Amino acid sequence: MFVLGIDPGLTRCGYACVEALGVGKARAVALGVLRTPVELDLAGRLLMLRNELRSLIAECRPAAVAVERVFFQVNVRTAMSVGQASGIALVEALDAGCEVAQYSPNQVKDAIAGYGGADKAQVQKMVQLRLGLAAPPRPADAADAAALALCHIATAPMRRRVVEATS
Amino acid sequence: MFVLGIDPGLTRCGYACVEALGVGKARAVALGVLRTPVELDLAGRLLMLRNELRSLIAECRPAAVAVERVFFQVNVRTAMSVGQASGIALVEALDAGCEVAQYSPNQVKDAIAGYGGADKAQVQKMVQLRLGLAAPPRPADAADAAALALCHIATAPMRRRVVEATS
Repeated sequence: MFVLGIDPGLTRCGYACVEALGVGKARAVALGVLRTPVELDLAGRLLMLRNELRSLIAECRPAAVAVERVFFQVNVRTAMSVGQASGIALVEALDAGCEVAQYSPNQVKDAIAGYGGADKAQVQKMVQLRLGLAAPPRPADAADAAALALCHIATAPMRRRVVEATS
Repeated sequence: MFVLGIDPGLTRCGYACVEALGVGKARAVALGVLRTPVELDLAGRLLMLRNELRSLIAECRPAAVAVERVFFQVNVRTAMSVGQASGIALVEALDAGCEVAQYSPNQVKDAIAGYGGADKAQVQKMVQLRLGLAAPPRPADAADAAALALCHIATAPMRRRVVEATS
């Protein structure tokens, strides 16, 4: 099963397609960052991002897409474009027939490093170990996207059992 | 020339397709509100909104789409979904080959009522007069969308001349 993690953003949108290989095992199939040129206007950048996300989903054919749940940060200009990018990612994933999940940064840290207060370096180290890489993925946005995918792989089976038990 | 105004939102997304009929004259061709059910999850609601906006643009075939520029409000949950809805509207408009413009609420008030501090009732009254309607459009989101379309009709020719003169 392939899971595509997406760390939404307009200037840098991290992505990581991760294959679940059984209990605790996973490997990175594709990993990187989508960028849109700052010279372009907002609508043009969002359309470019949509087209690139669409190609990525068509190529990776993930069963599920895990998108970071966006909250408001100090920089309100960035937060709005992150929100716009996340909306587009959610729509593209669902439209392609994928299961769609959102995770907050703390949920990801908790699932990957064992506690919600883990720092960025600890999460990156755990991502490296879990994927059997020689070094933490670079850039950081790609590592964050891989952490999202690993978070989904780790927690989705449990969530599914809870839903089944309570429905 | 048809201009489609969009007041983005997930629970209520106002729209108004307005035909420019010459200096100061315009008529409403279509006007209303798109809604998505609160029972649906976020991705499902955004996809539904995208599909409805796509149908609307295909039906109205506007030359231009004017989308409200979103800012952060007191309610951060609403602001994020408004941002997500606006991103989707901008992408659909550009992908359909329309000219795309964004206006802040103050720009709209200034263009419609003559000053940026105009209140909602004044703007609605001006929209009613400009479109030759018997009463202000209801609901308010549809009136806001009509104001966006009228703002674009009023200001786009001037902006175009400025661009031509300075390029």
